[in-house]
Order: sequence, then structure tokens, then C-alpha cells
Amino acid sequence: MIRWNNDYNHTAHPAILQALAECGQEGFDGYGQDRWCREAADRIRQLLGPDGRDADVQFLSGGTQSNLTVITAALRPVESVICAASGHIHAHETGSIEATGHKVLALPSDDGKIDPALLERELERFYADPAQEHLTIPKLVYLSFPSEFGTLYSLAELEEIHGLCRKYGLYLFLDGARLGYGLTAPTNDVTLADIARLTDVFYLGGTKCGAMIGEAVVLLNRQLQRDFRFYMKQRGAVLAKGWLMGLQFAVLLRGGAPGTKEEPLYFSETRRAAEYAMTLRDAFRTKGIPFFVESPTNQQFVVLSDDQLQSLEDAGHLVEYMDRTDETHRCVRFCTSWSTRPEDLEKLLADIAQL
Amino acid sequence: MIRWNNDYNHTAHPAILQALAECGQEGFDGYGQDRWCREAADRIRQLLGPDGRDADVQFLSGGTQSNLTVITAALRPVESVICAASGHIHAHETGSIEATGHKVLALPSDDGKIDPALLERELERFYADPAQEHLTIPKLVYLSFPSEFGTLYSLAELEEIHGLCRKYGLYLFLDGARLGYGLTAPTNDVTLADIARLTDVFYLGGTKCGAMIGEAVVLLNRQLQRDFRFYMKQRGAVLAKGWLMGLQFAVLLRGGAPGTKEEPLYFSETRRAAEYAMTLRDAFRTKGIPFFVESPTNQQFVVLSDDQLQSLEDAGHLVEYMDRTDETHRCVRFCTSWSTRPEDLEKLLADIAQL
Amino acid sequence: MIRWNNDYNHTAHPAILQALAECGQEGFDGYGQDRWCREAADRIRQLLGPDGRDADVQFLSGGTQSNLTVITAALRPVESVICAASGHIHAHETGSIEATGHKVLALPSDDGKIDPALLERELERFYADPAQEHLTIPKLVYLSFPSEFGTLYSLAELEEIHGLCRKYGLYLFLDGARLGYGLTAPTNDVTLADIARLTDVFYLGGTKCGAMIGEAVVLLNRQLQRDFRFYMKQRGAVLAKGWLMGLQFAVLLRGGAPGTKEEPLYFSETRRAAEYAMTLRDAFRTKGIPFFVESPTNQQFVVLSDDQLQSLEDAGHLVEYMDRTDETHRCVRFCTSWSTRPEDLEKLLADIAQL
Amino acid sequence: MIRWNNDYNHTAHPAILQALAECGQEGFDGYGQDRWCREAADRIRQLLGPDGRDADVQFLSGGTQSNLTVITAALRPVESVICAASGHIHAHETGSIEATGHKVLALPSDDGKIDPALLERELERFYADPAQEHLTIPKLVYLSFPSEFGTLYSLAELEEIHGLCRKYGLYLFLDGARLGYGLTAPTNDVTLADIARLTDVFYLGGTKCGAMIGEAVVLLNRQLQRDFRFYMKQRGAVLAKGWLMGLQFAVLLRGGAPGTKEEPLYFSETRRAAEYAMTLRDAFRTKGIPFFVESPTNQQFVVLSDDQLQSLEDAGHLVEYMDRTDETHRCVRFCTSWSTRPEDLEKLLADIAQL
Repeated sequence: MIRWNNDYNHTAHPAILQALAECGQEGFDGYGQDRWCREAADRIRQLLGPDGRDADVQFLSGGTQSNLTVITAALRPVESVICAASGHIHAHETGSIEATGHKVLALPSDDGKIDPALLERELERFYADPAQEHLTIPKLVYLSFPSEFGTLYSLAELEEIHGLCRKYGLYLFLDGARLGYGLTAPTNDVTLADIARLTDVFYLGGTKCGAMIGEAVVLLNRQLQRDFRFYMKQRGAVLAKGWLMGLQFAVLLRGGAPGTKEEPLYFSETRRAAEYAMTLRDAFRTKGIPFFVESPTNQQFVVLSDDQLQSLEDAGHLVEYMDRTDETHRCVRFCTSWSTRPEDLEKLLADIAQL
Repeated sequence: MIRWNNDYNHTAHPAILQALAECGQEGFDGYGQDRWCREAADRIRQLLGPDGRDADVQFLSGGTQSNLTVITAALRPVESVICAASGHIHAHETGSIEATGHKVLALPSDDGKIDPALLERELERFYADPAQEHLTIPKLVYLSFPSEFGTLYSLAELEEIHGLCRKYGLYLFLDGARLGYGLTAPTNDVTLADIARLTDVFYLGGTKCGAMIGEAVVLLNRQLQRDFRFYMKQRGAVLAKGWLMGLQFAVLLRGGAPGTKEEPLYFSETRRAAEYAMTLRDAFRTKGIPFFVESPTNQQFVVLSDDQLQSLEDAGHLVEYMDRTDETHRCVRFCTSWSTRPEDLEKLLADIAQL
Repeated sequence: MIRWNNDYNHTAHPAILQALAECGQEGFDGYGQDRWCREAADRIRQLLGPDGRDADVQFLSGGTQSNLTVITAALRPVESVICAASGHIHAHETGSIEATGHKVLALPSDDGKIDPALLERELERFYADPAQEHLTIPKLVYLSFPSEFGTLYSLAELEEIHGLCRKYGLYLFLDGARLGYGLTAPTNDVTLADIARLTDVFYLGGTKCGAMIGEAVVLLNRQLQRDFRFYMKQRGAVLAKGWLMGLQFAVLLRGGAPGTKEEPLYFSETRRAAEYAMTLRDAFRTKGIPFFVESPTNQQFVVLSDDQLQSLEDAGHLVEYMDRTDETHRCVRFCTSWSTRPEDLEKLLADIAQL
Repeated sequence: MIRWNNDYNHTAHPAILQALAECGQEGFDGYGQDRWCREAADRIRQLLGPDGRDADVQFLSGGTQSNLTVITAALRPVESVICAASGHIHAHETGSIEATGHKVLALPSDDGKIDPALLERELERFYADPAQEHLTIPKLVYLSFPSEFGTLYSLAELEEIHGLCRKYGLYLFLDGARLGYGLTAPTNDVTLADIARLTDVFYLGGTKCGAMIGEAVVLLNRQLQRDFRFYMKQRGAVLAKGWLMGLQFAVLLRGGAPGTKEEPLYFSETRRAAEYAMTLRDAFRTKGIPFFVESPTNQQFVVLSDDQLQSLEDAGHLVEYMDRTDETHRCVRFCTSWSTRPEDLEKLLADIAQL
């Protein structure tokens, strides 16, 4: 069986397992106050450039935990979050944001991205309402980069959303669970330095980009840095053995500048996965298989007939089922990842060609 | 100035003020444990018929408070509420339900009502989802009768929604802030006995139907009765001088059966307002003024040109502004109520005729 | 039966009922945006003196509601409240503060008051803790004036607590549910102007001081004023017919300066009750009946033998039971209030003399 | 430097790191639906005996997360938790339980344990209170085994607390973050089968007993099993790569019955640490160094003079500071653990002998 169903089905990049084994006999201070966490945080600040120089970096164990901890720390009880209707916090986290007391305002979206025009209208509507106090105050924009459908914001779009956030006093929070796949996508024009300049808080996802566990939450806005570790502890997000996460990010981020030959594993491994995904996309396109959404990153959403799906499954490919699109077709997700092997891709391409 | 802007702009029906004055020198037990509350609760149970015989009746001071107290008492943290997108809890209560930790799933709706077909699809979708645990569990349907747009569910529609709730294990909660106006609307075919049979909890609104303050929450489902007064106290909804609310409901509900000559003020006064509203509706219709939504109850939503609106305001009519519909028109609400005087209606009809 | 059990067993002062009757035919704007609320708020600001000039005054319907709304508006999720163990929010409000997400740190107390030395130790302990982030951040001191046992802080004590709050960055919140009885107590040396100077937020209780319903929350600290009405709406604390509360406070507060012949009913009526309570206290003392706590205000807590209690109950006096102190004695509360009649006091004094 | 400061300062038992390395090239299903989690859960059920046959076992990443997820799943909003004042949820988790909306009722305790007599009094007091609805409903007893001070409940004590929970309808929740050290303590008379029989939910701690990360939450009461994974997801406690935790518990729990030669690492390694701790205890005792609390498990709390402390630190021993006991003495914690080496113990014993 070859697993295309998601990008978190293998333990961790071998370099991580090796580093882990090497320090098995060493003692560390707890709760993320150790040399690995310091190294990883320093390295992240270095990658962010001037706007990230004073960033606070904290390591949390997963996406839902990171999302709810950041949002509960950022908002007062009458404030709310705006996101796309497909936003992970709205669609797939069991009401975790509401469980911290906040309303999520979901904007309609076909491609997983926030339409800046819709966002502006929502904000204008609130500020024009004479009975404003019967509404929640929009205070944070949540977006995913790449989105849940694998799509990317252009730099221009990010700047427009950033501008609206500044104009109306909102925080901008970028969920980067798959950030590596986004930054290394061939069509991407956004850099880590741009993200440091345009957002108030974001995270570099580890779990889906080569680590066993861990998201590196980067708090740029000083207001959000304040007491953040209290929020982490309160939400059960302080790992006793914090060095486990620091070590993983340190290993993944060691090396030269992204885009160079010496770029860190975090970039080289996701870059390879993005290239595989583009090859895969071409194969589906050649075959005339339609896409549910056009994605430039490691997640590809295609609409297969039940026969096509059966045929690929019979050939040993494991995929993730999305919604049915009609009685004989279904949307299906294929993910490449740092753990995808070249020979797996070759086999899938061959099997698609046979459809 | 004649106030058509809402149905809560006068203190209370004179019979209430008189009863209040009469017991000014009398002492009472606190927290709703008094003879007035007992009388009002008994009277309500009597009006509900056999399905309401064991109902628990509690008096709370307002709609938002009643909604949030009932919902926090009904739901476990991973459970959510379904309502129409215009539902008061979703649109106009400052995220009060999310503040108790629960997601509100809002169904699209043009007329303020839940479409049973949409409701069924939503429930089917949840129960068919293999990754169900990433979603909240729909557990309560909230609907308003009349809706926020003045519309009414037919008995058939209520029974269909009730059936879906039973099938999927949801509570049905009816917000009756304007229940009097709904029950006495000329086209209504729903009785209090039907509501007692079909819902798990509902309230008879007092504030908008002749009282100074107070909503009578009727808990039919035993599961919801359990510890309900703890929830009231925790949410600040136990009034020290509870008899103030009991007295008002007792005064409004004394008399014979609804629809008879001796019907209680709660019905006769809202019936009169509903008749006024129908006369008003005819006047707009005659004039060719379009309705935003067709309403059979005391709230009428019409689309006026800015000139027409100005003209009516100049004549001394106070209305409530809703959204603009285009650059020169606006949706406007006219409410009749127990406090509307015949001469006020006459003047408004004459002024509309002049438009 | 003569009711000494509490100070909220009669509807309202006759002047309020009369004013209510007089405006029965008048229309008002809703949600507290009316001339009565403006008059009452202006009057309160005038009574507060220079430190209250920019105060925001809002009318809420009860004590628990006021407490939870103020505290949820004041605190971020990792912040907590400090109060005496007998503090109403800790001991008698069904966990309402925890239900908004905040820990209550209860300081041991014999007399219902916070001991400033204990408060200081608690704050020092927190700021000295190297693992601070495993604790909540103390951010608000809640105290009652008079306390739940009828005791009063001296001006010196209030200033000391105020000083600690300033030193450690805490808000000071004074629950004045019985403020009238405190301000007019013979031994009291605290004025409304002192309270305006020393606290960040407090309320003048109406329910227990002559009104039907209502607490006037006075927000002095600008930080707390911000968006406060959003919090009120979210917690169900915006009354549709807000003028009902404005009117009551306006009627109770009209007149000259407190302590003068023309002082408002809010002061003259509670002053009378405080005098009655002192007479009552003397009667118990004369009889050798011990006090549970020595109180200078309208609540008197005495320890009666079961025989004594039976004898007073047989004579028609209704009291409130507190805890048993031993197998044959019980602590019992006697309250005087604005509604206590001279002849009732005479009868009670006579009956005590007979014990 | 030799780390005695805590029992979570080394990565993981070598057997775990080896197993991890061995399956580095294998793919798994996500979210804990994998063969490792199944193996670990089956093994735990086997160890529990007949009362644990139908237990649901879930793997969470840490103690605070486990505590808050279990408690939010167990309680309705008006219900509260009872624990000892030193209980971790009360004293060291940043108000995490209150953040889920629940009051924590802390019973005074000198040794970290709940006194059954105090517990009974608290429950009796609640059920005797005529104004019960102004209080929260006690619904869950939380205790730690071993306690935060290393002490243990005897089987008789656990049975007494269990009996009170049954009598008054409370859940019994046992925090077993250090369960291994408790079960293998020389004086312990409680077995896993007893725990399965007497509690409604408990956990076997991994983080402090040899694992990198993970607590195995065992839900015995069917009521608590219901929808538990929804609560996990909502609180950010579902790890994408769940097999990481399953693997660790499987490795730690493989083998024969506890107490036999073939007992699993979970028992043999903590047993060794407990023996070391007893040796250490004897060394302090011999030296006349007083204990803050007498502990039969791997945590030893002693009161050292500042000179003694300095001397041990100079010799390279790292300990954890607790409160000062007077101006020249401080309580200090020494922990042994699965990662303590015999030579480290020897050195510490020698250095103590020199004090």
C-alpha cells in the first residue's frame, strides 16, 4: 500500500530520529527551556529577517492546539475571528474556538482562501451598524497558507488583507501547518520575511513537514507575546520534554538560505514533494481528470469516477475520500510529502496513465 | 411622535401597573418562590393542556438571558445549536451562545424560518461523516415563533422539524419572545397545546407582549428541568424579587380560553395588534409599496424610498431602520403592539395614503 | 408575619411605584438610551465628585449579573480574582465567575473582609514564584461594602487595599449591593467620593435599597468602560425597557447632599434602617445574646438557642437561618431595610426583651 | 551535573528509541487508529483485569491536557471538582479547569491527600444546604496517586473515597502521572485491578515513567467514554501521529505480570527508582535531615539548610526548590526516575554522608 491519503503518515525524517538517538543519554531542563529550543528559535528568527528579530517562538504539539491557544490569548470575550468557511478552525476542529468562547465568522469561499473584498464588506458592515453592540467585534483574521485546499495567497493578496487588518485594528494569524509546501511551491511569491512583515502571529508546521510532532508558533506582535506561556500552560500545551520539539525544528532548519543548495531539510524536502505534486497534477490533467480545486502545492484534489478510484485502489494506492460530487464520482485527495519515495510516484503515474 | 419602531417602548399594560401598586405594602419570599409565580406557572400549565401538565415554569428577565441559560443547560461542550441565519442567537446577541462554549450552525434562510429540508441535509451530512469527531454534534434546534421577520411556521412545518429532532436526538427550543402575536395571527394554525407537544422547551415572551419585564420559560423535557435553577443562578438570571415577574404573567394570563370573549390580556391585546398590523399591511399593499418579507404578524418590513421615509418621519412616525436595499431605498420595520392606540393607526394609514 | 429574613422582601419604595404609574402612557427609547437613565447617571456622577466626573454608569438587573459582567469584561483568560472566602462571588453565585473561565482565589476571613496583610502575602507569593506561569495572574480584587456579614472597611483599610492594587496592577471592584446601608452606618468613615477615588468599578445596589430591580454599575477606569455594553448584551444584561431602572435610581437619588435634611431617599431610607439595626443590636446585647459577627449595618447575625428562635418565630418574626453553631444553637440573620416599619421594630424589641 | 530536580529530564527509555527507529520507514493511519495504539490499549485492558475489560483507552500528550479533557467531558456547567488543595489541577495548571468553566473545591491537606472525613463533610454540607442552587454541585473527585508530595492512598482509603463517590453520585478520577512509582512502592497495597474497580477514569502516566510523551487515559465508566474523542479533538488533544504514543506504551508494557521477573519496563524501571528513593530517604534520615512530608515513592521532599543545599549543588547535584521554610532553610525536592543511574545514586549518598 502506498499512502497518498495525507502528509503525516510516517514518523519523521531520518535526520530527526538520528539526532534523537544521539542525545538519548543527555539530561535537559523541562518545559522548553533548553538548548534545542533556543537553537531552533534563534534559527527561525534568523530566517525571518528584520521584522522577526524580536519574535517570540514557542513550540506546541499540534495545529488545533496552536490555533486555540493563539486565539484565546489574542481575543477578549466579545471579540470574534473571521476566516474562510473552509478554515480548519471552523470546519474541522470540533468547535474548539467556540469552546474558548469566541464566535467564528465564516466567509463563503470556493478555493479555501479569504476574498479580500468580502472581508472588507464584512468589516464595513460591522462598523456601520448602529446596533453594533448586538454583534461581536471582529478582531482577528485567520487564514491558512497553503489553504485547506492547497491554494496559496499571492503576496499582493496577503498585503491587501494585511492592509484591511491594520485599517480596522485586527490581528492577522497565518496557520502554516503546511508552510514548507507553500513556500517552496513553484508559483509562490511569498517569503518568510514577507510573512514576518505582514502577520501578527503564524506558525511553521512541523507535523506535516517532516517532524514527529510540533508546530513552531511565532509571535511577532508584542501584544500577543505577553503572558503567552500562561495561555499555553492553561490549555495543556506546555510539553514537559519540550526539547523534543526544539530538536526537531533545529534539525529541519539547519543549513543555508532557503532556495540555495544548502537549504535546510524543511525546504528541500517539501520542495521535492511540491515538485512531485506538480508532476502528479500534470498526469491527471493529461488524462482529462478534472480538479476539484486547482492547487499549486502538495495536496491535489481530483474528481474521480468510482471505477477510476477502484482501479487505483486495486493497484495499492491509499487516498483520502472527500465529498461525493455526483452519484458516480467523488472528490479525492492525493498528498505528496517529505516521505514520498520516487518509486512510489513512478508507480502512481503509471497507474494513472492506465486509467 | 408615534413609536412604530418596536413593540417594547411602553412600560406595561395598565392592569399590571395597578396590580403592582396594590401589593406595594405586601412582603414576599424571594427568588421566585412566591404566590404570584405559583399562580402564573399553574395558569401556564393549564393553558398548555395535557402535554404541559408536568412542565416546569421559570421566569427570566429577558430574551438573550433566556436563550443562553436554556442552551447552556441543554448542551454538553461538544454539542452545537442549529438555527436560521437570522436567528436572534446568531445575529443579534453578541455571540452569547459561543460565550457559553457552543458553536451555532446557521442555515441559510430568506424568511427567518428554518427550511426542514436544509435541516435534514445538515443532520444527514453529520451522521454520514467518517471524521465526525472533527465536527460538533448537533443537539438543539432553535427557532423563533414568530421569526425575527415576523413569519410563522405552520403546524405541518413544526411537526416536520419536531420529527427530525426526534429522529436525530435533538432538543427543539422555541423562542416565543413575541409568542402572543404569533398565536393570535389570523393565518396561524398552531396552538399552545401544539407547542407543548412538539417542543422540549419554549418561552412565552412578556417584555414585548404587555409586561415590563420577563419571559416565562417552560421546560417540558424532564432532562432539561434538571438543575435548571442552578443554571439560572449561575448566569445571573434569578431575580431577587421574582414575584415582579410572576405577578405580570398572572395578570396577563387570567381569564378564559384563548379565542373566547374572556380570553386573557396576553391574547386579546396581541390579537388587536395583529389586526392593526394586517390593516397596515393592506395599506402598504394598496399603495404598491413592496415588502421585504411577507409577515402575518405585528412586525411589517417594507421597502420605502428615502422620500417616502422622510415624509412619514416628518409626519411624526418613528420607525426602525433595517438595511439599505439600494441607493435610494431602505428596508424599514413597523411594529404594532399592545400599546398601539387606534388613533395612532388611523393617522399612519392616512399618512401612507398620502405618499 | 414580620419579615426580617432579608432586605428585598417588598416591591419598592412608594415614590418609585408612583413615578412608574405616572409615565405609564409615555413611550421611551429602548436599551437604556432614555431620559431616565441619563438623569440617574448624571445624578450619580454628581454625587461622586471630581473622580467620578467621567464615570460610565450602566444599569443591570441584579448582583450576580453585575458581578459576572464586570469580571468577564475586566479579565483576560489567564487572570484571576481575589476575594474573601465569604465573598458572594465565591460562596453564593453557583460558580458564576468560574463559568466565565476565571479562578477565584479566596482568602481566609472571619468577618467577611479582606485582610490587607493576607492580600499582600498572596501577591508577593505570586510575583516571587519562579514557575509563575503555572499559576493564574491575580488581576482584580473583589470586595463587598458592606460585606456579606454586614461589616465595613474603614477608609484606611480601603486605601491600603487600593495601594496594593496600584502597586501590583490589579483592578479594585467594590460590590455595593447594600451600599446605602454602609454609607449611612453610624461608624462609617467612607464617602461616595472616596469610593470613586479608590476603586476602578463599583455599584450602587438598588434591589436591596428601595428599588424593585437594578444595580447602578459605575465604571471609573477607562479601560473597563471600553466595550462594556457589548459584554452586557453578551451576558443577557441589557434590559429592553432600560428606563425602568433609570427611573428608579433617579427617584431614589433626587434631592440634596447625603447627610443633609434634603438627602435623597437612597440615603434617608437606608439611614433609618441602619438606626433600627443599631437599636436591635443593643437589644440583643442587653440580653446577653452573642453575635456571630459584630456588624455596624442593617444585617445582624446573632446566635440563638433553639428555644429563643422558636419563641421569636411563634411571635411572628421571620428570620433567615445560617449555619448551626452547636447542637442547640444556630446563627440567625435579622435584616432591617427601607421597608421596615417602626411598629415592627417595636414589637421585635419587646419580644426580645421577653426571651 | 546530576539531575534530581524532576523525573522528566531524559528523552525516553532506550527500548523506546530503538522501536521508534525500527519503524521509521513504515506508514500508519493517523489520529491513534493504528496497530501500536491497539496493542497498547489491549495490553492495558489485560493488566486491569475483569473491571477493565470494557475500558476505553486513549493516548493524550500530557497531564494538564489529560486532566482538562477528562474533566470537561465529565461535568455539566454547574458541576464542580473536589480535590486536595495541593492537587495539580488546583495548584499548578494555570486555572485550566476554571478555564473550562468549572469551580474547583480545594480541601485543606497537609500531605497531598484527600482526607475522606473532610470530603464527607463537604458533601453533607452541600446536600443539607437549603439554598443549594447558589452553590455548584460537587460531581467529581480528583486525586493523584502518588500525590504531588509523593504520598500514597492505602487501599482502604481509596475504598472509602470510592464509597463516598458512589453514595453521592460523584465520579472518581485518579491522576496517575507517576502511577508506576506508586504501584511499585514498597509500602503500596493498591493494584491496577483495584484502580479499575474503584475509579471511573484514571491514567497511566508515560512522560514521567519512561516515555518521551504520553498519558494513557483509561475510561472505565461508560458515561465518560461517550463522545470522548470529540472532547479530545476540541481541546487539541488528538495527535496526528498517534502511533508515537501507542508505540511507547506498547514497549513499556510488554512482558509478564507486574511483580514477576518478566514484568514490563513500566514496572521494573519505576520499581528500581522507588528502591533508589528509599535508599536516599534512609540517607537523609540517618543524617537527621527532616522531611517536609514523608514519602514512600520516587519524590523525596527534605528541608535543607542553605549551607547543606549549597554543598550538594557544589557537588554537582541539581534539585528542585520548593518554598522556604524559614530564613535559613528551604524545602527541596529530589526525584529518582527510570533514568537515574546507580553511580549517580552512589555519589549522592556519599555527598549526603559528608553534610
